Amino acid sequence: MSHCKKRARDHGLTFGTLPTGKNNTITDVSGVSVGQVTLFEGDDIRTGVTAILPHKGNLFREKVFAGTSVINGFGKTTGLVQVDELGLLESPIMLTNTFSVPAVTEGTLQYLLRENEEIGTTTGTVNVVVGECNDSSLNDIRGLHVRPEHAITSIKRASSNVDEGAVGAGTGMTSLGFKGGVGTSSRVVGDGTLGVLVVSNYGTRNDIDFPPGSIMMIVATDHALNERQLQRVAKRTTFGLALTGSTAHHGSGDIAIAFSTAQKVAHEGGEQERFQFLRDDHSVMNDIFNATASATEEAIWNSLFAAETTVGRDGNKERAITREEAFAIRRSLVGIKE
Amino acid sequence: MSHCKKRARDHGLTFGTLPTGKNNTITDVSGVSVGQVTLFEGDDIRTGVTAILPHKGNLFREKVFAGTSVINGFGKTTGLVQVDELGLLESPIMLTNTFSVPAVTEGTLQYLLRENEEIGTTTGTVNVVVGECNDSSLNDIRGLHVRPEHAITSIKRASSNVDEGAVGAGTGMTSLGFKGGVGTSSRVVGDGTLGVLVVSNYGTRNDIDFPPGSIMMIVATDHALNERQLQRVAKRTTFGLALTGSTAHHGSGDIAIAFSTAQKVAHEGGEQERFQFLRDDHSVMNDIFNATASATEEAIWNSLFAAETTVGRDGNKERAITREEAFAIRRSLVGIKE
Amino acid sequence: MSHCKKRARDHGLTFGTLPTGKNNTITDVSGVSVGQVTLFEGDDIRTGVTAILPHKGNLFREKVFAGTSVINGFGKTTGLVQVDELGLLESPIMLTNTFSVPAVTEGTLQYLLRENEEIGTTTGTVNVVVGECNDSSLNDIRGLHVRPEHAITSIKRASSNVDEGAVGAGTGMTSLGFKGGVGTSSRVVGDGTLGVLVVSNYGTRNDIDFPPGSIMMIVATDHALNERQLQRVAKRTTFGLALTGSTAHHGSGDIAIAFSTAQKVAHEGGEQERFQFLRDDHSVMNDIFNATASATEEAIWNSLFAAETTVGRDGNKERAITREEAFAIRRSLVGIKE
Amino acid sequence: MSHCKKRARDHGLTFGTLPTGKNNTITDVSGVSVGQVTLFEGDDIRTGVTAILPHKGNLFREKVFAGTSVINGFGKTTGLVQVDELGLLESPIMLTNTFSVPAVTEGTLQYLLRENEEIGTTTGTVNVVVGECNDSSLNDIRGLHVRPEHAITSIKRASSNVDEGAVGAGTGMTSLGFKGGVGTSSRVVGDGTLGVLVVSNYGTRNDIDFPPGSIMMIVATDHALNERQLQRVAKRTTFGLALTGSTAHHGSGDIAIAFSTAQKVAHEGGEQERFQFLRDDHSVMNDIFNATASATEEAIWNSLFAAETTVGRDGNKERAITREEAFAIRRSLVGIKE
Repeated sequence: MSHCKKRARDHGLTFGTLPTGKNNTITDVSGVSVGQVTLFEGDDIRTGVTAILPHKGNLFREKVFAGTSVINGFGKTTGLVQVDELGLLESPIMLTNTFSVPAVTEGTLQYLLRENEEIGTTTGTVNVVVGECNDSSLNDIRGLHVRPEHAITSIKRASSNVDEGAVGAGTGMTSLGFKGGVGTSSRVVGDGTLGVLVVSNYGTRNDIDFPPGSIMMIVATDHALNERQLQRVAKRTTFGLALTGSTAHHGSGDIAIAFSTAQKVAHEGGEQERFQFLRDDHSVMNDIFNATASATEEAIWNSLFAAETTVGRDGNKERAITREEAFAIRRSLVGIKE
Repeated sequence: MSHCKKRARDHGLTFGTLPTGKNNTITDVSGVSVGQVTLFEGDDIRTGVTAILPHKGNLFREKVFAGTSVINGFGKTTGLVQVDELGLLESPIMLTNTFSVPAVTEGTLQYLLRENEEIGTTTGTVNVVVGECNDSSLNDIRGLHVRPEHAITSIKRASSNVDEGAVGAGTGMTSLGFKGGVGTSSRVVGDGTLGVLVVSNYGTRNDIDFPPGSIMMIVATDHALNERQLQRVAKRTTFGLALTGSTAHHGSGDIAIAFSTAQKVAHEGGEQERFQFLRDDHSVMNDIFNATASATEEAIWNSLFAAETTVGRDGNKERAITREEAFAIRRSLVGIKE
Repeated sequence: MSHCKKRARDHGLTFGTLPTGKNNTITDVSGVSVGQVTLFEGDDIRTGVTAILPHKGNLFREKVFAGTSVINGFGKTTGLVQVDELGLLESPIMLTNTFSVPAVTEGTLQYLLRENEEIGTTTGTVNVVVGECNDSSLNDIRGLHVRPEHAITSIKRASSNVDEGAVGAGTGMTSLGFKGGVGTSSRVVGDGTLGVLVVSNYGTRNDIDFPPGSIMMIVATDHALNERQLQRVAKRTTFGLALTGSTAHHGSGDIAIAFSTAQKVAHEGGEQERFQFLRDDHSVMNDIFNATASATEEAIWNSLFAAETTVGRDGNKERAITREEAFAIRRSLVGIKE
Repeated sequence: MSHCKKRARDHGLTFGTLPTGKNNTITDVSGVSVGQVTLFEGDDIRTGVTAILPHKGNLFREKVFAGTSVINGFGKTTGLVQVDELGLLESPIMLTNTFSVPAVTEGTLQYLLRENEEIGTTTGTVNVVVGECNDSSLNDIRGLHVRPEHAITSIKRASSNVDEGAVGAGTGMTSLGFKGGVGTSSRVVGDGTLGVLVVSNYGTRNDIDFPPGSIMMIVATDHALNERQLQRVAKRTTFGLALTGSTAHHGSGDIAIAFSTAQKVAHEGGEQERFQFLRDDHSVMNDIFNATASATEEAIWNSLFAAETTVGRDGNKERAITREEAFAIRRSLVGIKE
């Protein structure tokens, strides 16, 4: 991964006490990959797709444990009902703009149908998970410019490289009154790794919230957690989000999804299966909670530092944050003056 | 509404003690309308769309209170996150097959964007609610034959007439081992009305559940209920569903959405608003619960009696139920032999 | 277990197709035991305690997986918050009258503190689960006649024998307009067993709901289910409850708790633990759902048939149901006339 | 209210931009009162009760809207099931130590039964809400020293005065590795007020969590919010908690309850009732969210600054925090070195 641009840490911001993973990206969790399609066309197309794959195998045939947390449900994320019922993820997690959820769902579905000829014929259906934020301040969101093939392309591009800022689903996003977008971070926890990828699009400079914003927060870990434990982890993203000054405003769709790559659940199997889980009371669980919070916080700051000033729809302009502005926001959070 | 075909009641089945509304349909609730598009083409296209409109005005600008209940979440219904957070419905409730959720969401979104030019420009986003069942035993569900325009057409066709059986979203559905589909029923409760529309696609004759089935249950009432009370109502569909022998098998997506037409919530407004609600402890609330259960049960039986034997994908055939078979199922439920 | 009294089955009622366990009681699940204290004193004390022990070992040190379902939350059950968070049960499940929840919680706590000297000193706390129904039509519930020692006695009495009817927590309960109380039933499912114990206190003869009623439904199984699966099972009690005519009226506290005896979770342990779980898609899971519904239904009818006419507070009298009345209720449910 | 001791603000800490209420206490919300009983006896009794009354009238006959949020459910709070189902609070909110929940529930119940002779005779039951934290590091929690009469006394003492620190339920609590306890704060929001009271007992100096800690956070406002909106508010306490460095560790029972004093719901009434609610999209709603977060944060710091070094069980000692330590914690949160 080549980061020509300075990331939050390079600017001197620090986040908790746990060490980062090798690249400080969600793909530090072994097997996880990310693919993105950026649509930056003409004066008003500023949008895209980001795909997060828990592993590069066949996700429908080898599902992973997952849990969700809806922090503020002013959002159109699809696929959570089944994840909550079964505790399993069987598609990539796709991120895009609010009105492109149907196109991205359809593209992902097409991809999964091609990969699995038995879906809808000799076996049941497949559950596609797509999250979103509203990029309408920079993007012609009404134009529905993301099409199903963009979703498929983003999946196919998935690799361990994760570009940050105004790319993929983050192309048109705005956060804390500055240009936002895709950000990522990771932590080494015990003998495992935990990574977070966010699309940041919430908060304002003057507390005026139009258009309403959101944040999608995806957590990956190779620790052996079950669906209930992953719900607990997903909920801990709130603690990182809070450290950036958010209080999850009314119009914000703040949603987290966590998954574990440690164990795969076969689509079909025998009667019983054995799984290994971390004990909830083991100290590493608290470290996992801490890691989730601090990696979420850092991923958000990474999204801001990586995003460049962008002009879009109707000449609207969202400016990149400066180091000084970032420090001022952090200091104001804890009431430190100078 | 012209029912050439005998409905469940005409066959001598009875359901609770509350009287039905005028037409024994969900559209007995004043203002509610239903539109359907049936795709019955060639050998293997057996699917469609059913749209339920709480009122014929602009739903985005005049929202209604709503509540949901996920009885068994093996399903791909979209839009519930925001309904749960805000307690409001701002789109028609759309029903279709599992893999057509994206197309129907996109079509409904296009319809709402056209009706409301400010969405995505000067105001925020809009939340589309789409439910589904898996019609793959009769339909080439992998073909994605439902397209966005079918959703728009179904909305435009909405009227007080409700066709039942193998129509709209029910075209390819199967229930209790017989041809299922769309069914509806209503009750007069106190000085108001409550109606239910179902797409039945659950249960089997031999307890072999492939392909997995589901049921969508939509409840409308003109009683002044708030979002919490509507969650309670949505949950009572379970009690009607149970009376048909279901225990919500693993692979079933059994989901209910209830809304009240009594009061509209403007998209924009002042600081405060006044609403009127039925007291939870008033006896009519229990009648509403009873009505929900019995109208759900009757809607299911109506869906079965209206559905005609259908041949579809791979020559698969789902046979219409007979009066005798229906009585046998009901009797066996309470262990009555002859 | 000696049932001098005829149970529902002996009267010719049948429930589903699965065979019952050896004694048709919750204690057919190996290791499960039940203890009861009946307070029937003077003119107006008609109450008691029922304790259900998942196993006879030290529950705090060897916890079991558990899941809950709040069908209608007009109830004062305590302890669910922690069961939902951790998926574990570490106390007996105690049942009593509404206002005796504190006394029974305290008694159970005293019992657990004595058994585990380290609680509150070198280890953390313990979560006591107590459910309740309102027996105020027959019992002087304001008198708080159940004391902590009654809870302790009920735990110590726990055995495989389960008395039904107007005993233990069921002493003063009323259901469907007749004398209700404790009932139990079981099913053989695959190579395991599932049992249900209820305290029935809901429903009325004339749909007049005062005092408000409730039902507690406890499900035990030796199938290897995890906490999420046990939530699914707990929810299936609704389907059995519905088959008795309930629609969970406003004032009813209808709450289910399910646990699995298959695997024990040590209070303290290493970092990781391995567990074995039934696959959700295995056909035996649907049988477990069916067994839960039909055993719940049968347990309710057993509670009614076992309960004898009782006179209590203010001379209030609740009459035992007759065979004919039971059949009439069941027939009316499916609209069969004679 | 006389604060001889300096509060967090007096030490130079600042929290958000909204102004505090008159006394910077939860009782700045008109009608809200707080009563406390402190048990500080011998070497090892360090515990107590804190009662929060939404109004000084009869709470059973004039209920208030309420919503809850379980941030981390390792806790024994009782009464949430019914608050969640009905959206109403009909008892004082009582806070105490973990094992005194039964005694405090019973005392509160006795109080309510005396005030309302019809409960349990001609009307139904009453739902008592009691929250808790584990004070076992300083208190002989196994001794069950809090008795029902202490609960009654705390209710009777309720006034607009709120003592902070090692008093009431906070007597034996520990937070962030220092002596914790009761803290409170308030904000003026639009034309209304919002106040928070916490019992802080979470977090550690060295990330070693024994005994497990917790925090109870009670939010009061005179803004006209309904039960769903109050759930949103309760959830925003998380954002204030996060700003003190918490990530809600495994063993922590982190639970919030929010209520509105704006409108009373009569125990009995006619069929319909009219209520006025703040629109979710009004800007004051976001201010309410902000106020909840910052008042929670400040209440926590107030609890720490007010609490004096305390020696208790087994000579265990929890030291009061110093101004320098507080600033160091805050600075470390945002990675500021010196």
